[in-house]
Amino acid sequence: MPPTEMIRIPAPDLTATLLRVLGELGMEGESADLCARLFVEASVDGVYSHGVHRFPRFVKTVRAGVVDVHARAEPVERHGPVERWDGRLGPGNLNAHRCMERAISLAREHGMGCVALAETNHWMRGGSYGRQAADAGMIGICWTNTMPNLPPWGATQPRLGNNPLVIAVPHPGGHVVLDMAMSQFSYGGLESARRRGEMLPVPGGFDSKGELTRDPGAIEESARPLPIGYWKGSGLALMLDLVAAVLAQGRGTHAIPADPYAESGISQLFLTIDPRAAGDAARAEEITSQILEHFLGDSTPGEVRWPGQRTAEIRRRNLAEGVPVDPAIWEEIRGL
Amino acid sequence: MPPTEMIRIPAPDLTATLLRVLGELGMEGESADLCARLFVEASVDGVYSHGVHRFPRFVKTVRAGVVDVHARAEPVERHGPVERWDGRLGPGNLNAHRCMERAISLAREHGMGCVALAETNHWMRGGSYGRQAADAGMIGICWTNTMPNLPPWGATQPRLGNNPLVIAVPHPGGHVVLDMAMSQFSYGGLESARRRGEMLPVPGGFDSKGELTRDPGAIEESARPLPIGYWKGSGLALMLDLVAAVLAQGRGTHAIPADPYAESGISQLFLTIDPRAAGDAARAEEITSQILEHFLGDSTPGEVRWPGQRTAEIRRRNLAEGVPVDPAIWEEIRGL
Repeated sequence: MPPTEMIRIPAPDLTATLLRVLGELGMEGESADLCARLFVEASVDGVYSHGVHRFPRFVKTVRAGVVDVHARAEPVERHGPVERWDGRLGPGNLNAHRCMERAISLAREHGMGCVALAETNHWMRGGSYGRQAADAGMIGICWTNTMPNLPPWGATQPRLGNNPLVIAVPHPGGHVVLDMAMSQFSYGGLESARRRGEMLPVPGGFDSKGELTRDPGAIEESARPLPIGYWKGSGLALMLDLVAAVLAQGRGTHAIPADPYAESGISQLFLTIDPRAAGDAARAEEITSQILEHFLGDSTPGEVRWPGQRTAEIRRRNLAEGVPVDPAIWEEIRGL
Repeated sequence: MPPTEMIRIPAPDLTATLLRVLGELGMEGESADLCARLFVEASVDGVYSHGVHRFPRFVKTVRAGVVDVHARAEPVERHGPVERWDGRLGPGNLNAHRCMERAISLAREHGMGCVALAETNHWMRGGSYGRQAADAGMIGICWTNTMPNLPPWGATQPRLGNNPLVIAVPHPGGHVVLDMAMSQFSYGGLESARRRGEMLPVPGGFDSKGELTRDPGAIEESARPLPIGYWKGSGLALMLDLVAAVLAQGRGTHAIPADPYAESGISQLFLTIDPRAAGDAARAEEITSQILEHFLGDSTPGEVRWPGQRTAEIRRRNLAEGVPVDPAIWEEIRGL
């Protein structure tokens, strides 16, 4: 549930307002439509932090020249199902969408596809591209590196990215879509908890004395959020950075400016596998349904959830009743 | 460092003893050589829990008819770089090695490869197959599902596998190989800590009252180990199960017997991508070295380590001075 102080704005009004601002930035036609749609859909699906709420930051990065609204990702080298693309510092969500679209085409042709993308910008909600693959009947796996924002296990300085990982499996009852960063909590999540005066439900990082803490403000101060699973998430974040940067022949986290408003030139990977390539589609659906059913087991409804389980329901409600938006951010967007 | 009570046995003696036992089980020739090598190499590389120490359990599963030493994984369906194989309940390490070998060949031909394997057995040390890909110059990603041994986040009964995930990136200075299960600690790790009378360094699960605890015995009793990153590792474990079972058209965790000596018919996935397919090999090596260097930063040596960093050093020492083996397990193996 969104916090009670949010107001609900009809999705078409959000889209119209975003399109007006994008037009003033010089984005028109299909590009502007897709860019606005990706922002609004994230909020419609309940991923408020990476939807419309992030639009003001996007606009600032365009105005600062970090994001070039006229640039688009283009292929650099092709080898069967494997391709390397250059994002040319264009809008991150458009670049990611284009590369996942290409990875889907490659999987249609070859059974699987891999598009590695260098020199791109923040993709906003990573789950969008997982859903895009699943909508096409593909298993989609994608991830991005980020600026340094997470200390490796054993270190005190942020030298890793939180490198969100997305895995999507198509499912007629609503796609299963995992979209998770390698830090236990995002900086946005820490800020929200601090403003509400709440402790985190589990330790989220170290305080300035090096003690694990549930106090969000203490973690913001130390800049030492915790990788998921301590040493394990630290290792996994490193591997995601390596694989994306190596295949894209792009920047690793260390070469990305460590400032949310200057973060740019990041590396991403888009993998697709068609479950129908060497298998039977009906059997794949059956296996998915059985696994989800057993995952839920006899739990009280709501106590255990698979990733993406509530998305369809949230989407229906937000389309019917309006999309929750923070009123201060909505005012900011309308004044952009 | 291995616990002090371990004794050191020369690697050739370990191999000879394992080969004798495998011969008595009916394994001969190249298969027996490879099977023994994979067990011994895991111990040589310092992964004692999944090397020679696990051999008695392997022998028991062969004698119980769970593992068929004469069966080998065979292709079922092929579509370009994507293949589906049937493990026919053969030895898990031989099946995994064969499927990674095939995925490497596919990547040589197509730039990438995917082999999904159904009806196989425990692969012992997953990192072996990551190293196998990296030795061939490939990025290797593989994972396995397991029997139910981990409660989903929000549940009290084990309905997820801990589903180890392996990611390997080739590196001339020693491959970078992550090999991690989705539980914070393995049952083997809990048992070792309990026997040493030690608390875990971080909470590893819930006690029978549902409180997070660092007491390994309390977690063994409740059978509620913790997924890495709480809800995040729970979601990731589910996705790994889904993708492997769907692509292999094999069993999900729920259909795998929940007994370490009967666990069988599991599903695995082997992905390979050739960094040379759409990129330059020298540039890939350079990016890898830069990322590793910045990951270590100015940390005191040993405080921060990348996955696999110590493997070459441990291997050299264990080959020179003998491979650490628990004397009781060594007696057990010699009596098999």
